Amino acid sequence: MSEVVNKATLAHQAAGKLANLSTSAKNEALMLMAEALVHQADSIITANDEDIERGRREGTSESMLDRLRLDYMRIEAIASALRQIADLDDPVGTLLETIERPNGLIIEKIRVPLGVIGIIYEARPNVTVDAAGLSLKTGNAVVLRGGSAALSSNRRIVEVLHEALEHSAMPKEALQLIEDADRASVNELMKLNGLIDVIIPRGGSSLIQNVVQNSTVPVIETGAGICHTWIDASADSDMARDIVLNAKVQRPSVCNSMETLLVHTGYDQAAFLQLADALRQHQVEIRGCSHTRELLPWAESATEQDYATEYNDYILNIKFVNNLDEALQHIATYGTKHSECIVTRDEENAARFMQEVDAAAVYHNASTRFTDGFEFGFGAEIGISTQKLHARGPMGLPALTSTKYRIYGNGQIRQ
Amino acid sequence: MSEVVNKATLAHQAAGKLANLSTSAKNEALMLMAEALVHQADSIITANDEDIERGRREGTSESMLDRLRLDYMRIEAIASALRQIADLDDPVGTLLETIERPNGLIIEKIRVPLGVIGIIYEARPNVTVDAAGLSLKTGNAVVLRGGSAALSSNRRIVEVLHEALEHSAMPKEALQLIEDADRASVNELMKLNGLIDVIIPRGGSSLIQNVVQNSTVPVIETGAGICHTWIDASADSDMARDIVLNAKVQRPSVCNSMETLLVHTGYDQAAFLQLADALRQHQVEIRGCSHTRELLPWAESATEQDYATEYNDYILNIKFVNNLDEALQHIATYGTKHSECIVTRDEENAARFMQEVDAAAVYHNASTRFTDGFEFGFGAEIGISTQKLHARGPMGLPALTSTKYRIYGNGQIRQ
Repeated sequence: MSEVVNKATLAHQAAGKLANLSTSAKNEALMLMAEALVHQADSIITANDEDIERGRREGTSESMLDRLRLDYMRIEAIASALRQIADLDDPVGTLLETIERPNGLIIEKIRVPLGVIGIIYEARPNVTVDAAGLSLKTGNAVVLRGGSAALSSNRRIVEVLHEALEHSAMPKEALQLIEDADRASVNELMKLNGLIDVIIPRGGSSLIQNVVQNSTVPVIETGAGICHTWIDASADSDMARDIVLNAKVQRPSVCNSMETLLVHTGYDQAAFLQLADALRQHQVEIRGCSHTRELLPWAESATEQDYATEYNDYILNIKFVNNLDEALQHIATYGTKHSECIVTRDEENAARFMQEVDAAAVYHNASTRFTDGFEFGFGAEIGISTQKLHARGPMGLPALTSTKYRIYGNGQIRQ
Repeated sequence: MSEVVNKATLAHQAAGKLANLSTSAKNEALMLMAEALVHQADSIITANDEDIERGRREGTSESMLDRLRLDYMRIEAIASALRQIADLDDPVGTLLETIERPNGLIIEKIRVPLGVIGIIYEARPNVTVDAAGLSLKTGNAVVLRGGSAALSSNRRIVEVLHEALEHSAMPKEALQLIEDADRASVNELMKLNGLIDVIIPRGGSSLIQNVVQNSTVPVIETGAGICHTWIDASADSDMARDIVLNAKVQRPSVCNSMETLLVHTGYDQAAFLQLADALRQHQVEIRGCSHTRELLPWAESATEQDYATEYNDYILNIKFVNNLDEALQHIATYGTKHSECIVTRDEENAARFMQEVDAAAVYHNASTRFTDGFEFGFGAEIGISTQKLHARGPMGLPALTSTKYRIYGNGQIRQ
């Protein structure tokens, strides 16, 4: 039996026990895990040093090394996130619906764990703890397959967490780390229907696309965001400027940042020029349509390919359109159904935009940067689903649950 | 462009319009479709005759031909099902949740269509209409790929439905039938991420497994049911007999029928023998554990393989176990997480069973045959999901929807 099958089987067996743990038992385990991470910070940092040194020898970029690096402050932050997860309401066991049938059957729909969650991610040791915490809190066993560049860190972290779980009611087998660094272990994990109930990829688009293309286990796809902001003719110009700047430059590297600005040809030209200046001052490279380039001779020309690109960088496409319909058409063509915004004082146009745009999150007069589990008040975020099945948009703890029907009878049989 | 890509693209384009149709416009279209089927019954039956004759020439079994056959009564029943779908509440547009954030953002979560649903099914022309009706009612475009043995029937049915849609507000492009009988067209459909939002296979296990194994589009898996009934020591013997007989013989060919009966060794022996006699009178072949065969010398011996088989037939495994834990263990090992039942008067054992069994539907003192969208009061059934993602158990109209967040602000930006 391979490591992957062995560990997935152990997780599958533990899932049954985990599903029946009380909320307080799960929270206690999470608190012990947090405590152990802080207590064992030295040994975790020592293991992390191995990863960092190996990465440096192999020529890993400084920004990648920074994502990989652990220090006392980061470990404290990771432990603190676990404590916050412990504080959240437990969705498991919630009664969602009761149906009383004419034949006397009582049908209850309740939240239950998904079972075993497979997480495939990059060399970020914080995800190891975060994914484990979110999964265990919701009564799910979890099989982690992190990037091999973080293997020493992950191995030590999971050892520490296992030691903590030995002092809890939670079976330590519920938390499994695949150590096999070969890519074949990822492929194996994605095919374990019957042992793994869902795979959640966390990382860049090539990692996510590999999972979407090859997993036979159901997947929750997270990721790509080509988000638009549409400045309608009637937009308040100060508001438009603030929202556009925020959506583009507050954190360009993330999926809910803006990639393309659509502007009504009737929008105040002076206000547009001011906005363009502000973007330029923030070092934003502009790629524009022909009308944009007439107004901003310094702008580059935007191609079809540009409109279809998630830059995650200080680059912005700007396109003028004649009306709402053209804006909706552009968004339908190039958007990834993530987050889209209209800035307008026209309630009718706002209503049409909010109704007709097909996206996980549509905004009237607010920055797309709010598409985030914490900003939505969920207290946690597993990721932002960009598919329509199961969960869409920011995912809180309930996204890690399924449901079950309990039917109570007194001898009913079907006619 | 292949037929599959062409038609999926048309469906994708129509989906946007469809998502914004009013409930009354959708219902009107469904009523026109029903009317057209009845009006055009002659031409549909003529087309169906071609399929039947071709099937007969090719040696198709009579039972398969019967599933394929259409007559006036069946067409009226199919039309009537469409009218019933029109009568159901429309889940699209339902406000599920409102979140008010401290920064003043108002976040609304509403039900929206999934987009484009791909249905892959066997040579059953009634599924063509049923799947179309359920999809269109929920604002989804639909791409149908039925078994090629029903192609003439399906082609004529879709022509008739298209003619009806021409008199409605619903774009006829929302309903597409793949006519390419080559299996490659199925494989092509399953890979159209971006055009198709979900694939729902309807049919036997090889069809479903082909989709689960090969689709890169998200799938809702329906199907296999190895369902158990557990007679606890304290069970009422009349109730146990009625429930067991119903679960086995009322309709053995369906997924919610019972395949294995688990009996407590402490259960009344005379009552068990009576039950076994009743099963035998219903022509049920018994395959039993050694204890069963001591009591029923005429029974065959049950193998591991038998316990893992969905018979869908007049065959039943019977196994005696010493306690609830052993019953739970057997169900966890051999069950398919579909429907499981405990018959008992012991409330404590009932509570444990209802909590600990991991299945879409768990029953206390009622037949597993009730796992069905109509029996649950949903008024429709797309199928019975046997996965944990998105929908689990019987699926009504809401299972064909996704959600979207609408966020209303007055200039909020993220700090």
